[in-house]
Amino acid sequence: MLKFDEKKQLDSINGALALRSEINAIVDSLCEQGYNNLCWLGIGGTYASCLQAVVHMKEKTSMEVFAENAAEYCLTGNKRIGPKTIVVISSVTGSTAEVVEGVKKAQADGAIVIGFVDVESSALAKLVDYEVAYPANEQLKFFMLADRFMAKAGEFPDYETYYAEMDQYLAKALVAVEKEADAFGKAFAQAHKDDSMHYFVGTGNQWGATYSYAMCYWEEQHWIPTKSIQSAEFFHGMFEIIERDTPVTVFVGEDSQRMLSERVAAFLPRICNNYTIIDSKNYALEGISPRYRGSISHLVLQMVTRRIDAYIEKFNCHPMEIRRYYRQMIY
Amino acid sequence: MLKFDEKKQLDSINGALALRSEINAIVDSLCEQGYNNLCWLGIGGTYASCLQAVVHMKEKTSMEVFAENAAEYCLTGNKRIGPKTIVVISSVTGSTAEVVEGVKKAQADGAIVIGFVDVESSALAKLVDYEVAYPANEQLKFFMLADRFMAKAGEFPDYETYYAEMDQYLAKALVAVEKEADAFGKAFAQAHKDDSMHYFVGTGNQWGATYSYAMCYWEEQHWIPTKSIQSAEFFHGMFEIIERDTPVTVFVGEDSQRMLSERVAAFLPRICNNYTIIDSKNYALEGISPRYRGSISHLVLQMVTRRIDAYIEKFNCHPMEIRRYYRQMIY
Repeated sequence: MLKFDEKKQLDSINGALALRSEINAIVDSLCEQGYNNLCWLGIGGTYASCLQAVVHMKEKTSMEVFAENAAEYCLTGNKRIGPKTIVVISSVTGSTAEVVEGVKKAQADGAIVIGFVDVESSALAKLVDYEVAYPANEQLKFFMLADRFMAKAGEFPDYETYYAEMDQYLAKALVAVEKEADAFGKAFAQAHKDDSMHYFVGTGNQWGATYSYAMCYWEEQHWIPTKSIQSAEFFHGMFEIIERDTPVTVFVGEDSQRMLSERVAAFLPRICNNYTIIDSKNYALEGISPRYRGSISHLVLQMVTRRIDAYIEKFNCHPMEIRRYYRQMIY
Repeated sequence: MLKFDEKKQLDSINGALALRSEINAIVDSLCEQGYNNLCWLGIGGTYASCLQAVVHMKEKTSMEVFAENAAEYCLTGNKRIGPKTIVVISSVTGSTAEVVEGVKKAQADGAIVIGFVDVESSALAKLVDYEVAYPANEQLKFFMLADRFMAKAGEFPDYETYYAEMDQYLAKALVAVEKEADAFGKAFAQAHKDDSMHYFVGTGNQWGATYSYAMCYWEEQHWIPTKSIQSAEFFHGMFEIIERDTPVTVFVGEDSQRMLSERVAAFLPRICNNYTIIDSKNYALEGISPRYRGSISHLVLQMVTRRIDAYIEKFNCHPMEIRRYYRQMIY
């Protein structure tokens, strides 16, 4: 299978899950100190993950939780961020200027910052108040942190059962999805590698992933134009430009907003003959209880899109690591 | 001038401004009763206006203020919405299903709902706890309400000065923009009426307007595909697909996030030869103090886009009131 190393992938997910005791020690100590609210701060792909964490928490929590775009926060500020605010950030390189500035501003405003900075030696990793260094698995790390805060607030009574299941089954279940989705990914890439435009629709804890898949993968890494739209918003204007041959992909997850994507999926066949539905429900996820599938739907769909990416890269002879502009010039 | 009735436009804006005593009576009475937080609830175009109100308030307020998509709220809920929450909605027809359901849910959750429902006889207008009926001017109505809450909280000390200026000069200043922008609007429409795709970039209190202009005007009413992107996000992936001939329009406002759009405007000429900068700073706005221009930049730019719309409709022989799908079928 192209660009697939089963052992590496299993180790990557299991290694992320193993961060839980480290994450919990941080959360537990912050809960003892007390806090007012929780801000997920990011930009681009990390901002998208922040949106996912916020929707995930909204399912259960009565805490004040919000996402902030780092660049916008640096200019407009946010008076809700102050002492007793916990800010969470993630950065692969530790060198994203807006996030570095955002962390400095949040700290100046009195907030405590938890960082998932992959490069432990970066200045950003040293700047944050609490640092957890581990590569990739951003959403999983965010959700583990979110879940611990909710467990400590008494809002996630089956937290231990949930994570016992994840520790035992998640990595294998996700790797199985990737294998199962390989043929689909290849066929999809073949059909859409030359699209002049592709529409991606999603919602719920899947929306941030839909937004960043369109922007950070197709636009940034495959150089294929896209538009991403929230499932509910699809019906409020955007759908007027969908015609028979417009390429549209709907991500259907299993969280509380599933119905909104199902509505798009049910409507599309009437007006379009070039649509694809990618539904997390079609994957077995052995060992994962039905009631927990909604919280990991975005990871399931990510395994499917990894397969698409591997084949688009190959068919288009366009290595995903090349950039025209990003970090190639001063702007 | 095409589709332009100066007196009607002046009356429309001045009539909206005259709602202030009615709006203030509602806000003042709610402030006396006390409240915890403020939720702007909408979908599609009204959701976009909610985003604008939230950014506008963030400039000054320490209140908890957030936007909710009505369809998402109906499914996921939001435990921050409860007794002592004030929910604000807007609806032209009063018949948007998601908003009707959202209002019912918010009230069931204990919240007080203020509605700007244009059709006073609609069931939605009767459902809300406080109703203000007046056509169009959605953002102006939202901002007047927001400003009164902030004034009552002591966060807008020059509230009276600001509105004395608006009452005296805003309508005339905006109408002047529309006249001034007519030739530009015509030339822009001529140049872009056949675009297969158009990119719109904006930020700050202008972002919601950028999103809805792309979706609710070009896609829904002109049937021209678009993508809208926040100015800061532009550099985090999307810009990789911009080439010499890609049509890109940047809206530059004068609020706290102006710099983010200026950055896009400064970068574009290096990679693109088909871009347009629409900057509110280029319009005189007679009588409006420099420090107040940022709060009305989105209205200035709306006057410019009205001119574009008038000519695209004419050149494309595509009446803006026709729809392929929206409210034409069951979905």
